Amino acid sequence: MKTAVPRLVEVRRSVLKQNDLIAAMLRERFHGAGVRAVSLVSSPGSGKTALLEKTLTVLTKNHRVAALVGDLATENDATRLRRSQAPVRQIVTGTVCHLDAGMVRDALEGWKLEELDYLFIENVGNLVCPSSYDLGEELRAVLLSVTEGEDKPLKYPTIFDSADVAVVTKVDLAPAVEFDWDAVRRNIAAVRPGMEVLGVSAKTGEGFDDWMGCLTRF
Amino acid sequence: MKTAVPRLVEVRRSVLKQNDLIAAMLRERFHGAGVRAVSLVSSPGSGKTALLEKTLTVLTKNHRVAALVGDLATENDATRLRRSQAPVRQIVTGTVCHLDAGMVRDALEGWKLEELDYLFIENVGNLVCPSSYDLGEELRAVLLSVTEGEDKPLKYPTIFDSADVAVVTKVDLAPAVEFDWDAVRRNIAAVRPGMEVLGVSAKTGEGFDDWMGCLTRF
Repeated sequence: MKTAVPRLVEVRRSVLKQNDLIAAMLRERFHGAGVRAVSLVSSPGSGKTALLEKTLTVLTKNHRVAALVGDLATENDATRLRRSQAPVRQIVTGTVCHLDAGMVRDALEGWKLEELDYLFIENVGNLVCPSSYDLGEELRAVLLSVTEGEDKPLKYPTIFDSADVAVVTKVDLAPAVEFDWDAVRRNIAAVRPGMEVLGVSAKTGEGFDDWMGCLTRF
Repeated sequence: MKTAVPRLVEVRRSVLKQNDLIAAMLRERFHGAGVRAVSLVSSPGSGKTALLEKTLTVLTKNHRVAALVGDLATENDATRLRRSQAPVRQIVTGTVCHLDAGMVRDALEGWKLEELDYLFIENVGNLVCPSSYDLGEELRAVLLSVTEGEDKPLKYPTIFDSADVAVVTKVDLAPAVEFDWDAVRRNIAAVRPGMEVLGVSAKTGEGFDDWMGCLTRF
């Protein structure tokens, strides 16, 4: 019994190694096909789907866009995102707390990547486990809603460190929660110096142009 | 390589079995010592620490209370909770996405349980992984802040099903986010029929008496 945890660590290492191999293949496929793959990670309820719905709706006007969306249960997010007219596939993970590269590869089956400009991948809501799993994405955005508190980057450093851009969401609620922008910027910089920090509200549209700029720039 | 995931499942089963044994021992110790063990689980930023700080401050007036608090990194929560004058110990999990019974057992070392009426255990902010780990607690409260959205019980059913009471937090923000109480009650009931649902605001104190009633009743 005492060996269970070291064995878990060892097996987990092998799973991560396998994941990295698949992710590297995916990344190559994305590059080859000229599709920009963007993943979104955050706590449950930070507003990944709301931001993505608005993003898909705007991008589909001038770009070819698709999305994969991960959840433990329900097809609700895919149904919601399909209102944007973009093709969307739900990945239902069951009890698995994150997406992995194999799930992404399998979910892409039958899609012609050459016909896409952008592929969005919305991870399961979890600020811990997704950090270890490379999905072959070119840009990883970590979302943090103003209502979660400014301390989250310090308490969940790995996921902030694994991301390329931090998006502070629900900024329309910032006054109601007395959100401290200086503190959050300081905490993000402590974990990942130099990372770009954006503020958006999917509700009011505030900051949305900066987010779109970030997507087209990278 | 192909066997990595089945092996992970098998090893994880053995880890969970080991956890259940330790949790059963803990539960026996808690019962024998007459201490009521209460755990709190939720997403990051749902307000576990804010609720716990207020709870400790009130309970310490008439009861002997202590707390363990789990985080990937920082001692911040323990420092904050110690303002209540209750003894508090931080469990820093590193990259581990949940507390387990062994961590709780180790953190209790040197504490005389017989001298406590209540022991609170605040889990790592994660709406997925903590659901599988029994900590020997008598009451598990799952928190959900109004800003996270009413759909979360359907999307994270396992953790709601593993809990004994659902506490909707930050109800002071309910009007700002047009929170739909009927929907959240319906979604919780779909996952865990009959589970008690409370609404609280650690900021304004709204609903706090119901929460205290729940703690003293069980």
